[in-house]
Amino acid sequence: MGFTEVDQQAVNTIRILAADATAKANSGHPGAPMGMAPVAQVLWNNIMTFNPKNPKWINRDRFVLSNGHGCMLQYALLHLYGFGLTIDDLKAFRTVDSITPGHPEAHDTPGIEVTTGPLGQGVCNAVGLAMGQAHVAATFNRDGFELINNYTYCFLGDGCLMEGVSGEASSLAGHLQLGNLICVYDDNHISIDGDTNCAFTEDVVKRYESYGWEVIVVADGDHNLEGIASALKAAQATKDKPTLIKLRTIIGFGSTQQGTHGVHGSPLKADDIKQLKEKFGFNPEESFAVPQAVYDLTAKKIAEGAAAEAEWNTLFAKYGEQYKAEHAEFSRRLKGDLPEGWEKSLPVYKPTDAAVASRKLSETVLGKIEEVLPELIGGSADLTGSNLTRWKDAVDFQPPSTGLGTYAGRYIRYGVREHGMGAIMNGLAAYGGLIPYGGTFLNFVSYAAGAVRLSALSQVRAIWVATHDSIGLGEDGPTHQPIETLAHFRALPNCMVWRPADGNETSAAYYVALTSKHTPTIMALSRQNLPQLENSTIENAIKGGYVVHEDKGADVTLVSTGSEVGICVDAVKYLAETHNIKARVVSLPCFEVFDAQSKEYRLSVLPDGIPSLSVEVMTTMGWERYTHEQFGLNRFGASGPYKDVYKKFEFTPEGISKRAVATINFWKDVPNIRSPINRAFEQLV
Amino acid sequence: MGFTEVDQQAVNTIRILAADATAKANSGHPGAPMGMAPVAQVLWNNIMTFNPKNPKWINRDRFVLSNGHGCMLQYALLHLYGFGLTIDDLKAFRTVDSITPGHPEAHDTPGIEVTTGPLGQGVCNAVGLAMGQAHVAATFNRDGFELINNYTYCFLGDGCLMEGVSGEASSLAGHLQLGNLICVYDDNHISIDGDTNCAFTEDVVKRYESYGWEVIVVADGDHNLEGIASALKAAQATKDKPTLIKLRTIIGFGSTQQGTHGVHGSPLKADDIKQLKEKFGFNPEESFAVPQAVYDLTAKKIAEGAAAEAEWNTLFAKYGEQYKAEHAEFSRRLKGDLPEGWEKSLPVYKPTDAAVASRKLSETVLGKIEEVLPELIGGSADLTGSNLTRWKDAVDFQPPSTGLGTYAGRYIRYGVREHGMGAIMNGLAAYGGLIPYGGTFLNFVSYAAGAVRLSALSQVRAIWVATHDSIGLGEDGPTHQPIETLAHFRALPNCMVWRPADGNETSAAYYVALTSKHTPTIMALSRQNLPQLENSTIENAIKGGYVVHEDKGADVTLVSTGSEVGICVDAVKYLAETHNIKARVVSLPCFEVFDAQSKEYRLSVLPDGIPSLSVEVMTTMGWERYTHEQFGLNRFGASGPYKDVYKKFEFTPEGISKRAVATINFWKDVPNIRSPINRAFEQLV
Repeated sequence: MGFTEVDQQAVNTIRILAADATAKANSGHPGAPMGMAPVAQVLWNNIMTFNPKNPKWINRDRFVLSNGHGCMLQYALLHLYGFGLTIDDLKAFRTVDSITPGHPEAHDTPGIEVTTGPLGQGVCNAVGLAMGQAHVAATFNRDGFELINNYTYCFLGDGCLMEGVSGEASSLAGHLQLGNLICVYDDNHISIDGDTNCAFTEDVVKRYESYGWEVIVVADGDHNLEGIASALKAAQATKDKPTLIKLRTIIGFGSTQQGTHGVHGSPLKADDIKQLKEKFGFNPEESFAVPQAVYDLTAKKIAEGAAAEAEWNTLFAKYGEQYKAEHAEFSRRLKGDLPEGWEKSLPVYKPTDAAVASRKLSETVLGKIEEVLPELIGGSADLTGSNLTRWKDAVDFQPPSTGLGTYAGRYIRYGVREHGMGAIMNGLAAYGGLIPYGGTFLNFVSYAAGAVRLSALSQVRAIWVATHDSIGLGEDGPTHQPIETLAHFRALPNCMVWRPADGNETSAAYYVALTSKHTPTIMALSRQNLPQLENSTIENAIKGGYVVHEDKGADVTLVSTGSEVGICVDAVKYLAETHNIKARVVSLPCFEVFDAQSKEYRLSVLPDGIPSLSVEVMTTMGWERYTHEQFGLNRFGASGPYKDVYKKFEFTPEGISKRAVATINFWKDVPNIRSPINRAFEQLV
Repeated sequence: MGFTEVDQQAVNTIRILAADATAKANSGHPGAPMGMAPVAQVLWNNIMTFNPKNPKWINRDRFVLSNGHGCMLQYALLHLYGFGLTIDDLKAFRTVDSITPGHPEAHDTPGIEVTTGPLGQGVCNAVGLAMGQAHVAATFNRDGFELINNYTYCFLGDGCLMEGVSGEASSLAGHLQLGNLICVYDDNHISIDGDTNCAFTEDVVKRYESYGWEVIVVADGDHNLEGIASALKAAQATKDKPTLIKLRTIIGFGSTQQGTHGVHGSPLKADDIKQLKEKFGFNPEESFAVPQAVYDLTAKKIAEGAAAEAEWNTLFAKYGEQYKAEHAEFSRRLKGDLPEGWEKSLPVYKPTDAAVASRKLSETVLGKIEEVLPELIGGSADLTGSNLTRWKDAVDFQPPSTGLGTYAGRYIRYGVREHGMGAIMNGLAAYGGLIPYGGTFLNFVSYAAGAVRLSALSQVRAIWVATHDSIGLGEDGPTHQPIETLAHFRALPNCMVWRPADGNETSAAYYVALTSKHTPTIMALSRQNLPQLENSTIENAIKGGYVVHEDKGADVTLVSTGSEVGICVDAVKYLAETHNIKARVVSLPCFEVFDAQSKEYRLSVLPDGIPSLSVEVMTTMGWERYTHEQFGLNRFGASGPYKDVYKKFEFTPEGISKRAVATINFWKDVPNIRSPINRAFEQLV
């Protein structure tokens, strides 16, 4: 490639910016940026295609820093390559309200594709980005119009490789033959506990070959820019396999502590930075200095990027002449708008319709909307027949050579890889123009907690079809019956947990999930049949909570979700007949959405002057926010036919009534009962 | 080995029992038991050493069914090999309150070593069991006294191999050269979604070789009993590597649906069972029938097991003559009792002592107790220097050949493998005579949610040293700052979450964690320094909650945990000086333990007649159970120096006082304010 001294100067500039910023913040990880500066510079300057003036250009190459703690590497690159990060932003590294936080956050910083830092996640996001590329290319490319041909590049370290989630996604990536995915493993032999030989002695090359990856070893990642470039070029040329480049580097290259874990997570000392700058020919008295020659080099690249997008825009316009419908569709999806009137496809139910399991209701929704929402792409972690996530005649997303599907297929066989699935969904959503969903049992969404958290933090629209949502799954027993799961995800900020009670509530859950561009959704769905409720409509349910059964003279409000709402309705009759007690029933399928309604509305649903009892067959935690008393299950469940299990734990009209009576008695002497909706002050947002 | 017709009859008996039990339950998984019956019978009858009359004999071989959904295999074995499971127990498969639930549960069923079913967990438990064996052997064996030399056997399926957690533990097992671990992979090509070629096409042999395992392939697992026995013998002979036996089987062998996913998770139809019994020479009219010849065969094995233990008991008695102290120590540890007076080693603090981070206080505890509690064995998921989990002069648990430690070492280098660490801790605890602990950031305990859940369900004493417990970690930012984590694990039944506020509370947390034999603990510990509190004593704190600052005429109770308790104490002064308001302060380091106190005590801490405000820098969810109003953080945190972050979110004396005033105003017109401790009815237990 003919690398010059300026290239080397750029490499050293990145190293010094990382050292300066971590020193100024007195916090952060200089080691990885200093070690990976050569491959970063080669990749960004000589290999990748991107336009910093439009970081969202759809055919840009994607870059993911899976070892996100090394984010000063990425911030330095974003500065040098014109993404709008200023030297002041670098100086504000790791300070409150900066756009250069301690780990890269996609929603705040231009040019950051996905939020990384929790180890193992980024490389799975990269797999999702590469799957998204393959799918969008297969869907929209036409002869002579290779609209989509970008690569996804990912840097990762030992930590990412040790995390099981990366193994899940890497195995799937190999199976899927993702030739557009190129990962660079920073083989620096150092993790926080010291030399990796204390815990990580596996043969990484062999492992990735076993997954079906191409593996290329570069022995000197510190100096050999040509070798790095050749490896990246070779990886690009491998079209039917993802590639792992194992790059031997010295962590903290240039520091007097290089090659030790002393440079991993602590800033360099002042005299170390001084000698570093001297060694690299920089002025030791200057900080955050970038040589003009380096700016000139990257300016060229920035201009090339703008030209590349301009050329693409011309191609896309021509495409529009020849493929009008596809052009319109692609344009719509890039904007992220759903097609006009799509919601008319959502099924609507009458109270007289048959009782149906909500997992089955979800299947019906998917079957009805898949045609109007071609951006919907999803699958299951090997529970297709249980989650009912596959619509009739769906085509599998598979490499054509397998004979099992095509890359244009929209049904993903994730295998038993819940965590990988969650992280891949984050990547698919980040690609653009796609809405990912994934199925598993609700209990096993917990396996993916790390990925769900990042969906919420990075504001990704990912949808979990989480069936078998309670002890109502019956015979599989306590190992599979969620108790803490809803509380866990209800407590997670910016995450919608829906537990619909019937058909209209299920449609409502999908409506809100699909129209919430910046929030993930977990839909808790039943295995057992649920009756269609009297007052349930999509319009009511999209408020997150509403009155299912009103009675102005009621003695108690029963507040419930999902499969227990119908039992509460039965309890109303039982209470009237057996105790001469009047009860009203509220369905609260989604706390987060209900919380966003006006206080007036919330008080109309959960009014003052009447005691309330929540009924949900799992932990009572969190229900105290909405009700005065709570009937739940603060213990593990039991294995048996679901009706027997419900009976054992008294989730029956009788059992509910008993507690409703206790609630009324306990509150009868309290004057002016105040609804829990009333609070002394507002929470911070 | 000279297998006879009776061996084959035993194999078929297992198959038929599995078919009968799943048919009777109309639920369950016949396929795996029918496919794995040959290897199970060979292993149990010809290879393993165990005494069913004492399923807890310490030197028994361990058996783990990682593909726990196939538990009818295990229940059939436990019946045939005399563990006290009757035919009636088999008939009660998957019914409420039976000892044969839908997945194997260790605390209920004799002979079940660990609770499995959630895929990937069992094989990690097996790694833990094998580590436990290696450690206990290295600690107590002496020349001529090989007290401990058992093997750990584990069956696993495709699902377990796809789960990332198994990769984490398998990589570590290879590194640790666990020659005593033998896994059998049921290579049946079928998962729930159908043929595994739709999602799982990696080269498993090569992957396990890359981890440093011995891999043996048995091509015909359906008929070749000799081949199976030879493979198991060869695996036993490999002393410096774990072994994976890849066993090709036909799922549901004998069914007309054999080899399809139709037999994976659904009972066989009546006519299929009929032909199965006819084909195997059984009476098709009989169910749950066991030929006498099979009982005779297993009776011999049962007798051999009793003899083996008797012989071992003799050896152990002789050992006692020669190694009196070791014998006494080993005996104590097998009983699970802690040594008399160990708790005197717990450090105690005065209010005048310096402020210290609770992660550092935890390090001090470990340093003080490690000598009196030699059963303590732990480590960190590559955060040793941050979690402070390693006492001075600890020896690493490592294969001696590495030169990095010995198997008698008690400090485990887990690598960046939180989920694997959690599942391995469950195995270590199940081995007996060991108390495992593991360190990571609190936020990343979520990665291990699947394993923590099984600690709680299977009643395992595992201790999480979960440091960096809040936005107080500062610069690492929102990706690392827990918000939902405490609520998640507080909602999990039988799990103690401790968030100590100072030195004495940290000692109390360890005291309760170590003396609770059947409950896991998560200790949330601060990165930042915390002052020693006035009223804090171990005696107070072990009640889970107590009054830190009393004031009989108080206007409000501030209720807090961990790092915020000290700020509440400062807020008391601020409230008095600025608003002339009197406040009392309660520390509530552990909800679960506080809940177990008498109502009288709890009401003395959180009394009627006074409004209360909780203060904790994370989700408010769950606090409504204890307080009237809540100050928390129902959003993600921020990256910056921790004092700036606390200030941004107003967790300062001023910010707390503002909300205390709002609380007082909001409740001032309510007569007879009732403490939330009062409830209308008791929860089910």
